[in-house]
Amino acid sequence: MKNENYEHLLWTETSRETAYTTPIFNLIKAHRRAASGKNASFVLLECGDWVNVVPLVQNDAGEDCFLMVRQYRQGSQCLTLEFPGGLVDPGESAEEAGKRELKEETGCEAEKLIYAGKINPNPAFMANWCSTFIAVGLKKTSGQDLDENEFVDCELVPVAQLERDMGTGIHIHAIMVVALFWYRKWKNGEK
Amino acid sequence: MKNENYEHLLWTETSRETAYTTPIFNLIKAHRRAASGKNASFVLLECGDWVNVVPLVQNDAGEDCFLMVRQYRQGSQCLTLEFPGGLVDPGESAEEAGKRELKEETGCEAEKLIYAGKINPNPAFMANWCSTFIAVGLKKTSGQDLDENEFVDCELVPVAQLERDMGTGIHIHAIMVVALFWYRKWKNGEK
Repeated sequence: MKNENYEHLLWTETSRETAYTTPIFNLIKAHRRAASGKNASFVLLECGDWVNVVPLVQNDAGEDCFLMVRQYRQGSQCLTLEFPGGLVDPGESAEEAGKRELKEETGCEAEKLIYAGKINPNPAFMANWCSTFIAVGLKKTSGQDLDENEFVDCELVPVAQLERDMGTGIHIHAIMVVALFWYRKWKNGEK
Repeated sequence: MKNENYEHLLWTETSRETAYTTPIFNLIKAHRRAASGKNASFVLLECGDWVNVVPLVQNDAGEDCFLMVRQYRQGSQCLTLEFPGGLVDPGESAEEAGKRELKEETGCEAEKLIYAGKINPNPAFMANWCSTFIAVGLKKTSGQDLDENEFVDCELVPVAQLERDMGTGIHIHAIMVVALFWYRKWKNGEK
């Protein structure tokens, strides 16, 4: 079933235009030509890169925990419990954005951020990357510093509990499954 | 750090409007009020549900394999190797869509589709679900039946190889990491 020659699957762009702009992404119409010569247009989202941080801490009982954030998500219209993270600002590296988001959402700074991996949220219509860092050596150095429309509660979740609950209940966010995937890889020394 | 009362995190919708329509999603402006009384508008994507199918087969050497599809992704402008899947059509169940997509993209029908789990691709701006099914007892019953702008190659990928390579090289799609997550849960009997 394998075909070593993939030329027949490729498309080339002839032009693109911005169809609609929003504060978090732009909607693009890309006009492209298939290897067969066929022309078609595709709707894409142009979006900055994202970052998330998996902060490791111990709770008072000495259990290994993730520091997570509980927040209302406007898409799903419900509360979720997630790893801290957000958009990488222009001119910022993913690691800098991770440090910034961690501090803004939790008031904590990490001794070290360790790069664990990156993923494309959805290559069907997005080109951006979401990088994941493991944060170790956490210290609370300030209060939260949230965006105007951000309301976030911090929470310690035992690693064993999240390993069991991911994908159920309040843990519905695909990108958090990916962050846990990178955490496991790092934990198992596969990186 | 735990707060049992989450009222302060919630928003309620006052109105919404469709700002832009496309064949695969609509762009919505939702006007909402925070618990604090603050009003704000949020951009959301209104999109049908998605489905993917993890088809299990053996190759000629008797190795356990996934049947995967190699295709050009318009967002990332590169080839990816993914589990078969796509949009759930109106009136269709996720399972029916999974069967249909499997047949269209690979020409195969499964003896049984086993529900493994579902995830929200991104609750920050989407409300839809992506369900994953494990497909067992595969039989090739026809050729492919692809959409007009779809060009797809089928490929057998040993399970051990994908377990090793997921998140690297051609395996950049977040939703495929999630599908593998559901596969592992099913394989480990956690469902």
